[in-house]
Amino acid sequence: MKQIRIGLLGLGQVGTGIYKILTKKQSFLKKKTGCTFKLAKIAVKNPSKKRSVSIPKGLLTAKAQDILSDPTIDLVVELIGGTTVAKQYVLTALRNGKDVVTANKALLAEHGQEIFQAAAKAGRSVYFEASVAGGIPIIKSLREGLISNRISSIFGILNGTCNYILSRMTREELDFKDVLKQAQAKGYAEANPELDINGGDTAHKIAILAALAFGERVRFEDVACEGIKTIDKHDIAFAAEFGYVIKLLAIAKRTASGIECRVQPTLVAEDHILAKVDGANNAVLIRGDEVGEVLLYGPGAGPQPTASAVVSDIVDFSVGRYWGEQNPWLNKQRVKLKPLSLIKSRYYLRFSVIDRPGVLARIAGILGKHNVSVSDVIQSESKTGNVVPLIMITHDADEKSIQTAIKAIRTLKAVHSRPHVFRIEG
Amino acid sequence: MKQIRIGLLGLGQVGTGIYKILTKKQSFLKKKTGCTFKLAKIAVKNPSKKRSVSIPKGLLTAKAQDILSDPTIDLVVELIGGTTVAKQYVLTALRNGKDVVTANKALLAEHGQEIFQAAAKAGRSVYFEASVAGGIPIIKSLREGLISNRISSIFGILNGTCNYILSRMTREELDFKDVLKQAQAKGYAEANPELDINGGDTAHKIAILAALAFGERVRFEDVACEGIKTIDKHDIAFAAEFGYVIKLLAIAKRTASGIECRVQPTLVAEDHILAKVDGANNAVLIRGDEVGEVLLYGPGAGPQPTASAVVSDIVDFSVGRYWGEQNPWLNKQRVKLKPLSLIKSRYYLRFSVIDRPGVLARIAGILGKHNVSVSDVIQSESKTGNVVPLIMITHDADEKSIQTAIKAIRTLKAVHSRPHVFRIEG
Repeated sequence: MKQIRIGLLGLGQVGTGIYKILTKKQSFLKKKTGCTFKLAKIAVKNPSKKRSVSIPKGLLTAKAQDILSDPTIDLVVELIGGTTVAKQYVLTALRNGKDVVTANKALLAEHGQEIFQAAAKAGRSVYFEASVAGGIPIIKSLREGLISNRISSIFGILNGTCNYILSRMTREELDFKDVLKQAQAKGYAEANPELDINGGDTAHKIAILAALAFGERVRFEDVACEGIKTIDKHDIAFAAEFGYVIKLLAIAKRTASGIECRVQPTLVAEDHILAKVDGANNAVLIRGDEVGEVLLYGPGAGPQPTASAVVSDIVDFSVGRYWGEQNPWLNKQRVKLKPLSLIKSRYYLRFSVIDRPGVLARIAGILGKHNVSVSDVIQSESKTGNVVPLIMITHDADEKSIQTAIKAIRTLKAVHSRPHVFRIEG
Repeated sequence: MKQIRIGLLGLGQVGTGIYKILTKKQSFLKKKTGCTFKLAKIAVKNPSKKRSVSIPKGLLTAKAQDILSDPTIDLVVELIGGTTVAKQYVLTALRNGKDVVTANKALLAEHGQEIFQAAAKAGRSVYFEASVAGGIPIIKSLREGLISNRISSIFGILNGTCNYILSRMTREELDFKDVLKQAQAKGYAEANPELDINGGDTAHKIAILAALAFGERVRFEDVACEGIKTIDKHDIAFAAEFGYVIKLLAIAKRTASGIECRVQPTLVAEDHILAKVDGANNAVLIRGDEVGEVLLYGPGAGPQPTASAVVSDIVDFSVGRYWGEQNPWLNKQRVKLKPLSLIKSRYYLRFSVIDRPGVLARIAGILGKHNVSVSDVIQSESKTGNVVPLIMITHDADEKSIQTAIKAIRTLKAVHSRPHVFRIEG
């Protein structure tokens, strides 16, 4: 019977979940894998802190080095997050001949090349199923199950916090700020939710998926990224009038004119499967040339789903399952992403205008002059002279034309405040 | 560079798809796997038949034995279907030291024990990702991605033909027979669609999934199975009035009182994710104790998606990825499934009754006497004396009580023809 000796860096909620699985499901996992899993050591900031599970004395240490330089430890599971200390620890573990499992999307998206170069040099592997979409086996599906496919696109709802907030704003007609507060109180959003709601976390994840899907090294900084703060409940209501739902979509596409990789609030037709992804769930829609469209859907975060994915990586390491393909992070060249300004789509535009004759015509005229043609319009009635919303849906247009037109439109006296501009997919 | 020599048994649509992938994507697959894939021989009924792809001379043979006894062939891909000749070929291949990839759900569901015993004896593996849900990597996800989970339930839409027919009946208010004819004309249904529409194909698939999910040997013959012929467009319309969609669901559940495994037309709440699975798509909803609910969705059949799954198996074999868990088909005991008569659920009941005073009360009375309580009723108005539909939704009831009550109700003179009885899930 093969015994795997594991060192855990960090014992937060995910770490505790892993501890529980590896201790309570010993015989279950032994039966399934032919291996036993021994948690040899757990490095934490404060070993004497009171915890929700009782950990045997001697298992906890304040020194990560006790794990990183322990020659009896086969596998290091990194759960401390962040890209500074975590990076040092992962690099040290690899150099010391240990394989690594990590749930750290920021680390891989921002320093993937350095990490995987170190792994290659040491002849070790880095497993990272838990880094994207929590318990959904998306990395394995993309790399192994769909291996014969040339992937042409990935659409993802990859941040549970954002999707929870948008779902509640939609269902209950609430304001962003109110839902965010409630989400924080319920633990669906972090005390500092910035990286979630500004789209950064989603961008980390789509950078990883795009690399795997296209076999290209994607520079995280190149991923165009817009968060959900600009969406208000009126946008959601107007989008619904046109038959759309607003989601924070991560999009990676291979097109004739280059690879797109971006994160943007996007209008999705209400009968599209991604429009049905509610609450804190994640979903990834993959299009491959053989398989067509496959969707994976489920809880994208949370201690238990994430622990489920981490343990699947631990098992893959233990039974010697590996991914053999050329690692995109080792590519010499990084891919040049298609600039946002060249990406065409339909657009949702919401202006605040003074309701007086001729305003609609002037705005439509400016759009037309910039080759943006309008397919649908809603203008609420009011008394002349009041500020009213004017919503336009355009035909396909490129970002550059839209931005130039909007700049011109904003010089009109009848136009108040910054317009709301979102892309429409499909 | 490792070269894998493959023998193909059968060159129908799926076989042709595999041939295309392995020839056109040589360098793509080499880059991803470090292996080359050589189609060494293809056994077909008639080697001189004209085909949509041009196959090099000498590759085709009419004798399966040319593959089964060729010592240079590593891997046999069985695509001929059925459970007689296919079984002999697979057993021979294993005995001759070859590994096997198959898409044959009937073979595994009906003869899994014999096949896997032969494989174990020969020290070989049988790969079968393509046997369930076409291109969706459900077997891999269940066995590897979700390995740390105790699975409590699987709900599946596993037959593209049935789901296509039900989707069109729902969307276009068409009759079963008309849609079936059109589906046959379009290639969405076989000339002989019996195994699809009677639920047998779905039962094969859920028997395989249940075995993997619960680690139990499930006898295919024990899977309770009802097809879609009993559903008519009126049922679909009445179900919609109560907020439900009718789907052919495969259900496998682990309960305190035993394991359920069954295939039945089922009412699903219209806002449930499974209700949104349209057309020829498949979907599998898995509940695990760590991950919660995960859904995999995509094309469940068709030559290309199936070929995509077969090639993923070929790659797994080639790079030495295997599943290590105890094989449920090698269990000495088969699992005793919970009898249908003990499975409680809510029910949809549709009676045809003569519209006269007291009929509703008498039917409700009989149901009540058998401990079946009614939550909702629709009775269409008509002139007294006419035959009208009477639809009832019950609270939780067991099959036995329902069947006994219905038997009694059918003795009433006011009740015409056989009632339509479907379960409601969730």
